[in-house]
Amino acid sequence: MELPSFIASHLDAIERELDRVTPPETRRPEALHRAMRYTLMAPSKRVRAVLTLLSAEVCGSSERALPAAAAIELVHASSLILDDLPALDNAALRRGRPSNHVAHGESMALMAAFNLFNLAFATIAASYEPPLARRLTSLVAEAVGSQGLVGGEVEDLLATESSISFDALELIHRWKTGSLFVAAAAAGALTAGAGAERVQALSAYAKNLGLAFQIVDDLLDVEGDPAETGKPHLADARKTTFVSFSGVAGARALARELCETATGALDTFGPRADGLRALAGFVASRHM
Amino acid sequence: MELPSFIASHLDAIERELDRVTPPETRRPEALHRAMRYTLMAPSKRVRAVLTLLSAEVCGSSERALPAAAAIELVHASSLILDDLPALDNAALRRGRPSNHVAHGESMALMAAFNLFNLAFATIAASYEPPLARRLTSLVAEAVGSQGLVGGEVEDLLATESSISFDALELIHRWKTGSLFVAAAAAGALTAGAGAERVQALSAYAKNLGLAFQIVDDLLDVEGDPAETGKPHLADARKTTFVSFSGVAGARALARELCETATGALDTFGPRADGLRALAGFVASRHM
Repeated sequence: MELPSFIASHLDAIERELDRVTPPETRRPEALHRAMRYTLMAPSKRVRAVLTLLSAEVCGSSERALPAAAAIELVHASSLILDDLPALDNAALRRGRPSNHVAHGESMALMAAFNLFNLAFATIAASYEPPLARRLTSLVAEAVGSQGLVGGEVEDLLATESSISFDALELIHRWKTGSLFVAAAAAGALTAGAGAERVQALSAYAKNLGLAFQIVDDLLDVEGDPAETGKPHLADARKTTFVSFSGVAGARALARELCETATGALDTFGPRADGLRALAGFVASRHM
Repeated sequence: MELPSFIASHLDAIERELDRVTPPETRRPEALHRAMRYTLMAPSKRVRAVLTLLSAEVCGSSERALPAAAAIELVHASSLILDDLPALDNAALRRGRPSNHVAHGESMALMAAFNLFNLAFATIAASYEPPLARRLTSLVAEAVGSQGLVGGEVEDLLATESSISFDALELIHRWKTGSLFVAAAAAGALTAGAGAERVQALSAYAKNLGLAFQIVDDLLDVEGDPAETGKPHLADARKTTFVSFSGVAGARALARELCETATGALDTFGPRADGLRALAGFVASRHM
């Protein structure tokens, strides 16, 4: 599937920013920076970073949003490395390539994940005036913490096929996927100087978009072409997913419904939010 | 060995602050918070946090230093969990108890380490006015990054008995141990409103103190009583250490020399720095 132009037009700037904030592979310790860049710079649609830029645009300008978008991608890349580790998903492939610990060894993968995460905070502190830097630091830390990425991963670890309810599954993914989407959107809005009301509207949009994104991921795992998804068919089949709860048709309907709820939160912005509406359309129809 | 009173008198406040900033074990996900507290709240001399408080005192007042001291301990606890993992030191014991991944499982240990680190940044952002919060965030991120904890760990991983030089060993420990000591001291000074000159003097002190601390660790590994060190005799024997380079007597002399260089950096503070001088004395003579 071709990338829609509203995404493609932002990709160059995002890649350049990630390259700018990350130490080069020629700097010591070279092996660490190689492992960091291996995952960070792998081909990606950069949905979260694009969400940051579009959220900033709709609030006035994306001129100052790039470091925040990079910080979000740094956190995301870090979480991908961790997710794939033997102690977690034990995934040998990621985006069609050997996962980080397969390519660089487990200890180096761990250090790369830790340093990418650290670099997210360093980038925020180095790029924004103090009040905004502090606000973005809190935002990212909350998205990662006990009721964010980490908390969702833990709930996922603790969940077993037999005991998990639909509500529990939704909570896992609101924490594990949704929280970083919300932070991505809110961060973009804040870099454009948005007030509480617009930050809240964009957070509501992103919360529903993130959940839809996860459901489509589950669908791709059942229906997707391994050449496009970059991982073996049914790689997550041992897990309870939205598809195992609602079936393929039900999960598709749920994803569409969530994308509609998401775009509903954009009404206050009028036609300026067409990019974000298109992003929701892209997420809902990804590879399908 | 009894804790010196200048350390003991700060310990209660440090433990209370760590308890305050860390989610309780009764909050969801309970297993995550249990694993975090297992390492964070284990009995410890809190040398780094004490260093933060004493550095603040010598610059005027330690009244505002506690959250920064807690942030440093959070980073340290996180690094202890990571260090012990099978992919790194594969240590089954830490401070005489099963290490985190042995007690809580590897996946939970990983998430606990990540979340403790995240909590360090959250604590800084929640506790200080924006300019100081941003400064402390940069300070901690630098202490952790490519030329700090993570970089030192990577250099340590890459080092082999046959190829490592004395300079390489020193660099590993300046990054791996020294950098967090420097951040601890500088953070304390900054919370007391110290200017660049005093921050620099305390950083010089802490840099040498950190290296001395590591050398004494190497000595304890050779000479220490496992009941006191909490790890088996010669646990690190496979590694190149300062003792394998300089012998026991040479390493002792080096540690003393570094502590003297450290206290030399305190001259500008006069008798107000007696606490920091005593800390250097404590580090040099620990368990010996």
